[in-house]
Amino acid sequence: MFDLNAYLDDHRKRINHALESLLKTSEKADRILEAMTYSLMAGGKRIRPVLCLAATEAAGGDPEDAVPAACALEMIHTYSLIHDDLPAMDDDAMRRGKPTCHMAFDEATAILAGDALLTLAFQTLSSIELGKVEQAAKWLRVIQLISYAAGYCGMIQGQMLDMASEGKQLILAELKFMHRLKTGALIEASLSSGAVLGGLNSTRISMLESYAQNIGLAFQVTDDILNVEGDPEIMGKAVGTDKLRNKTTYPSLLGLKESKDFASQLVENALQALESLDQKAEPLRAIAKYIIERKK
Amino acid sequence: MFDLNAYLDDHRKRINHALESLLKTSEKADRILEAMTYSLMAGGKRIRPVLCLAATEAAGGDPEDAVPAACALEMIHTYSLIHDDLPAMDDDAMRRGKPTCHMAFDEATAILAGDALLTLAFQTLSSIELGKVEQAAKWLRVIQLISYAAGYCGMIQGQMLDMASEGKQLILAELKFMHRLKTGALIEASLSSGAVLGGLNSTRISMLESYAQNIGLAFQVTDDILNVEGDPEIMGKAVGTDKLRNKTTYPSLLGLKESKDFASQLVENALQALESLDQKAEPLRAIAKYIIERKK
Repeated sequence: MFDLNAYLDDHRKRINHALESLLKTSEKADRILEAMTYSLMAGGKRIRPVLCLAATEAAGGDPEDAVPAACALEMIHTYSLIHDDLPAMDDDAMRRGKPTCHMAFDEATAILAGDALLTLAFQTLSSIELGKVEQAAKWLRVIQLISYAAGYCGMIQGQMLDMASEGKQLILAELKFMHRLKTGALIEASLSSGAVLGGLNSTRISMLESYAQNIGLAFQVTDDILNVEGDPEIMGKAVGTDKLRNKTTYPSLLGLKESKDFASQLVENALQALESLDQKAEPLRAIAKYIIERKK
Repeated sequence: MFDLNAYLDDHRKRINHALESLLKTSEKADRILEAMTYSLMAGGKRIRPVLCLAATEAAGGDPEDAVPAACALEMIHTYSLIHDDLPAMDDDAMRRGKPTCHMAFDEATAILAGDALLTLAFQTLSSIELGKVEQAAKWLRVIQLISYAAGYCGMIQGQMLDMASEGKQLILAELKFMHRLKTGALIEASLSSGAVLGGLNSTRISMLESYAQNIGLAFQVTDDILNVEGDPEIMGKAVGTDKLRNKTTYPSLLGLKESKDFASQLVENALQALESLDQKAEPLRAIAKYIIERKK
């Protein structure tokens, strides 16, 4: 029986340890590094890095090799949260149970801390000790996958669409498209980069991408459900905010019960996409189920 | 006799053409791409990309090979200007003779356009058609050099120091240190990345780095001088703003005449650093002189 909690604990520790040492490269503690560390080590769920390591494992590789990619993905995710929380964007005061970066520091520092985390992600991806020269081509491919997903054709476009849709009633297809970009693209890149580093061939990578698309959407549907009926104590942030802001969500479009059914169906699809993979894909299977069962 | 104007024209055209095609990857013109294009194609001097191509040439390579690096450097420079101009930072309304990005669009779009340009820089650096697998290691090294220079140990730290020094009187060593990071680091990376792509060995790369440090500082000293006695018509931005903001500058510390002498001395040092290079370094020599003679 696969123990997901032990697996998540183990991988999160590994990722947190690696992130901490990546942030310790500067001798004196200065304000920008403090702000970067504050947000990066604020107790995130580390979903993207865990998915990346699990994909490397499913591909038959050693997850240790993918740790720099896992760290880079978390840095990019954290930078996007810092910038999204800014007054000019979503104007959020709390995140992960703590004041957001611009509240704890100031707006200019938060903008620069986000910029610095995004830049450090690519520094991390390019500072690999290369045993073999062929590895360089793999890492270049990973940088390409991640930068495309995080850029204006992916995550950033998603945030633009999200802001543009404020106060508007979206239809289901528009909502899905927005989330596919805003959160889906980086989740897809987490899996595909892990798979590339694990040495998977392109047919199988597309299976993992199908898995990623389904759990990415399931993740978002569950977020929307938690915003309706989650426990603010457990979640570390306010609930009911989507309704207050009149945001189109899966529960608002489909109803709460139907949203839960939809999320379950998406997880089913994700599991089907992994059918031809062996027991090394067990962590990915367990994570798919966890994504809709989580309480925060 | 080397014709710098023809050289700059030729290289700027090449860079602008490459930048335009890199921005044309999306089918429909959307707001984020519009904002990115607005700032990137606003008529910058293209100093960093020209230096990168000239370094490749000085190293004995084909500048054409370094065009993706040149484009990435300009994208990073432009993103830093967009973010520095934001209300939470320097709060500037005009740049390169046009309204700044957040004035022409809005603050959220400007933050995201900056993020997107930074991300596109790394996408550009990683999307190389690799003829030989050894090239991948070179490009990985270039990504490392550029991300380090642009990050919290380089350019971003410099912007933090610049903001922290507002209203304070700096001593010369502090002013130099701040500029070494804020503008010097990326100028150094422009030369070292160009040199790596041109195949230069590490001893000679350190010569180019010494050149870079000197012209980087000369560039900043000249900027300060232009802020005192430049023509706002030619420069496309207001002058006298440093004094108004009570900023420590080279003219305020050393006097105007002494600042000009200092800039000339720096250019002399830069030229000396190139002494052992052949006539292929002629463009770099001409650019060093241009940097203190420019009127904008």
